Amino acid sequence: MMRVAIYPGTFDPITNGHMDVIKRARKLFDKVLVAVAFSEEKRPMFVVQTRVEMAQAAVSDLEDVHVEAFDGLLVRFSQEKNIRVMIRGLRAVSDFEFELQMGYANASLWNEIETVYLMPSLKNAFISSSVVRSIAKHGGNVSHLIPSSVLPFVERKLLCM
Amino acid sequence: MMRVAIYPGTFDPITNGHMDVIKRARKLFDKVLVAVAFSEEKRPMFVVQTRVEMAQAAVSDLEDVHVEAFDGLLVRFSQEKNIRVMIRGLRAVSDFEFELQMGYANASLWNEIETVYLMPSLKNAFISSSVVRSIAKHGGNVSHLIPSSVLPFVERKLLCM
Amino acid sequence: MMRVAIYPGTFDPITNGHMDVIKRARKLFDKVLVAVAFSEEKRPMFVVQTRVEMAQAAVSDLEDVHVEAFDGLLVRFSQEKNIRVMIRGLRAVSDFEFELQMGYANASLWNEIETVYLMPSLKNAFISSSVVRSIAKHGGNVSHLIPSSVLPFVERKLLCM
Amino acid sequence: MMRVAIYPGTFDPITNGHMDVIKRARKLFDKVLVAVAFSEEKRPMFVVQTRVEMAQAAVSDLEDVHVEAFDGLLVRFSQEKNIRVMIRGLRAVSDFEFELQMGYANASLWNEIETVYLMPSLKNAFISSSVVRSIAKHGGNVSHLIPSSVLPFVERKLLCM
Amino acid sequence: MMRVAIYPGTFDPITNGHMDVIKRARKLFDKVLVAVAFSEEKRPMFVVQTRVEMAQAAVSDLEDVHVEAFDGLLVRFSQEKNIRVMIRGLRAVSDFEFELQMGYANASLWNEIETVYLMPSLKNAFISSSVVRSIAKHGGNVSHLIPSSVLPFVERKLLCM
Amino acid sequence: MMRVAIYPGTFDPITNGHMDVIKRARKLFDKVLVAVAFSEEKRPMFVVQTRVEMAQAAVSDLEDVHVEAFDGLLVRFSQEKNIRVMIRGLRAVSDFEFELQMGYANASLWNEIETVYLMPSLKNAFISSSVVRSIAKHGGNVSHLIPSSVLPFVERKLLCM
Repeated sequence: MMRVAIYPGTFDPITNGHMDVIKRARKLFDKVLVAVAFSEEKRPMFVVQTRVEMAQAAVSDLEDVHVEAFDGLLVRFSQEKNIRVMIRGLRAVSDFEFELQMGYANASLWNEIETVYLMPSLKNAFISSSVVRSIAKHGGNVSHLIPSSVLPFVERKLLCM
Repeated sequence: MMRVAIYPGTFDPITNGHMDVIKRARKLFDKVLVAVAFSEEKRPMFVVQTRVEMAQAAVSDLEDVHVEAFDGLLVRFSQEKNIRVMIRGLRAVSDFEFELQMGYANASLWNEIETVYLMPSLKNAFISSSVVRSIAKHGGNVSHLIPSSVLPFVERKLLCM
Repeated sequence: MMRVAIYPGTFDPITNGHMDVIKRARKLFDKVLVAVAFSEEKRPMFVVQTRVEMAQAAVSDLEDVHVEAFDGLLVRFSQEKNIRVMIRGLRAVSDFEFELQMGYANASLWNEIETVYLMPSLKNAFISSSVVRSIAKHGGNVSHLIPSSVLPFVERKLLCM
Repeated sequence: MMRVAIYPGTFDPITNGHMDVIKRARKLFDKVLVAVAFSEEKRPMFVVQTRVEMAQAAVSDLEDVHVEAFDGLLVRFSQEKNIRVMIRGLRAVSDFEFELQMGYANASLWNEIETVYLMPSLKNAFISSSVVRSIAKHGGNVSHLIPSSVLPFVERKLLCM
Repeated sequence: MMRVAIYPGTFDPITNGHMDVIKRARKLFDKVLVAVAFSEEKRPMFVVQTRVEMAQAAVSDLEDVHVEAFDGLLVRFSQEKNIRVMIRGLRAVSDFEFELQMGYANASLWNEIETVYLMPSLKNAFISSSVVRSIAKHGGNVSHLIPSSVLPFVERKLLCM
Repeated sequence: MMRVAIYPGTFDPITNGHMDVIKRARKLFDKVLVAVAFSEEKRPMFVVQTRVEMAQAAVSDLEDVHVEAFDGLLVRFSQEKNIRVMIRGLRAVSDFEFELQMGYANASLWNEIETVYLMPSLKNAFISSSVVRSIAKHGGNVSHLIPSSVLPFVERKLLCM
């Protein structure tokens, strides 16, 4: 039986922390679908199409990892794809509580879905997209925080702001 | 002596979690005033008048529970109403810290006010208005998360968005 | 209707933090029963009889506050006394999570019991019996942390150690 | 490829919370090994042999779930068994921080091991072995907290205390 | 050797909690630079120039405490000033986690910088700029929460809103 | 003026996490006194004399870092030494709350003492003496967690257990 897991997020942009979680998930499951949420209400720095492209560039070397955008309810998207395992990265306590709340809300909508929490390695545990955006906007170096294939997207964006 | 408690919030919209807290408060106090804050700075999904109507619909079966809107400082509103007990629901650690901060701030403004924290039952502990709004906006089912009398308000709103 | 609340604990010894919670509870309820647990498994510094005497000395000026020892399940003790409100003081996040766990366990045994959480004022929020014991055992001054009527009990105990 | 996961713990005794995690793990992996730690330093209520028997009674209906005792380092035991996935249940924030610390310590000893965190359903989220022991020792009912096949072991133990 | 520390923030407006931290820092270091961030993305209540003026008014009595605005990366600003010690006030758990994340991000950009966390005294521990703004906007009294020299700035601002 | 800081703890044994904090403290202050508490109530693995010797071996290369045992109240010991700065390492949220409680208790005993919190670097942030003891007792390798000069003490102890 093929085991598939979905890894949802805004990926604005995808970071080394996300990559760490994806590689761990790939060791546990046969396929991983990176699901990029529209998340317009968060006013992302990058439009969804660019966020998908960045994620695709980042995972291009990883077999059986795909990237797709989705709008609407994550649980419904998983249901349509018939994926019953959701991956979430855990970093800090504040993460943890939000995840708990979302996990219970998702289970109340579709109780076949199982959420699996993975922990990035220490050196990636404190990287977040918002820290990356904040450093980048202020002209700081983020090359140690994101995949090298994502760097050109960030640089291009900064030129146009 | 009549014991009255105030239960303040944005109620955008009122949920089963709020209802759980209100019913518990009602067992402890003779009257409960559900105080709906204007909260314009939060850019609520529903205007204050609709939030009051939803709360009124939800508590219509409960004796000695009333609903009122208020603007300005909660402590001053309580003072005008001569209510010295404030009810707050406790769910998660992040809630808890914010409540602590607000509790001390309120006490610094009027030290006659006593804050009483109640815990909803487990099945209601992870319901929040923001989760309800998020699911509803994406077309998901929220009928297990809010009172049935509130559902038509949410459906009507979604039609007009 | 007479409203009675139970305030359980080990009270090893009773502190100004406990007194703060008792006085707040007394404003909300007609009677407060301070219930001193045997808690042998915690190897308390004072035997239960002394812990009861210290609590009695501390509350002697407060009307309608009584002290009693209890062994066994708190929920059963409350049931025998027909008390349906339990008071707990909330100080820190670690407290909070333990309280949540105990609150749900108690509710699973007797769902008529309602737990009410009160917050001591800031100057009492960081006092705990264990800090008092630790300072006292090392010969430090604890007179600002416990009621003056409790001080002689602590001093007597230290002489005999 | 056969995917095997180890679920370590003291299981003093095994609870409905543990059972919930085991059943979730079983949906994700082909085999689950429940690994009962000696944990003498915790002075468990039940000796390791009884803890193994209770766990075996509890999982007897579940296919491909086995129980084994282990002493010494969990990471070394996993290594000997060639199991690279460890299951942990997540309930509260305090859990979470301890798990983080142990997860990083384990990874520092054997970086092939992957820790996977699962969340029990809400009704099982606040059950812990220590709450079960505490209620049972005080003569309370624990039949809603542990598997029915484990109940006789607990009752027998209480007779002999 | 002259020891200089930087104390960065938005100071929207500077509060008694900030003053508490500044005075503690001044006991430990020879000079303290209060660094007011532009923070446009937070849509502050006061423009940066006013925030600098309020901070200057508040520290005018303290020797060797200066105030300066900065834009861009804090780490780069510290580097230009050749300041290797950063002061942060710690209040609550949520603070703590954010600080941890920022501390590690800053260290990844310039590992010569040392972050020093100080704890305000209890009576100042629960004051935050956002609580001050919220009370002030609703017409409440904030004179016990901010330095007296800052009060006129707040009152003037409220007249113009 | 000579700036001296005290760094108290049980150091059972001293770890790379402690060393990280000591080196950071040494950059901020002219002298650091590592103060090893008797802590008999914690039933340490090593007697205080050995814990002092291990700490001395570990800091022998660091100038102006000394080690001393102390019994009784830390605040009184600091007072006798006329040291007004106390160093504490911060790692996790649970640490943080305990530190807050101790910090306020210490300040209530001697308000001249200033507690300064430092954060170890990420790779040392999850090392604790209890994890070291647990791994060592089970025969695991701890050479990446403690200073090399401390390792022989641990190995000698394990032979005698």
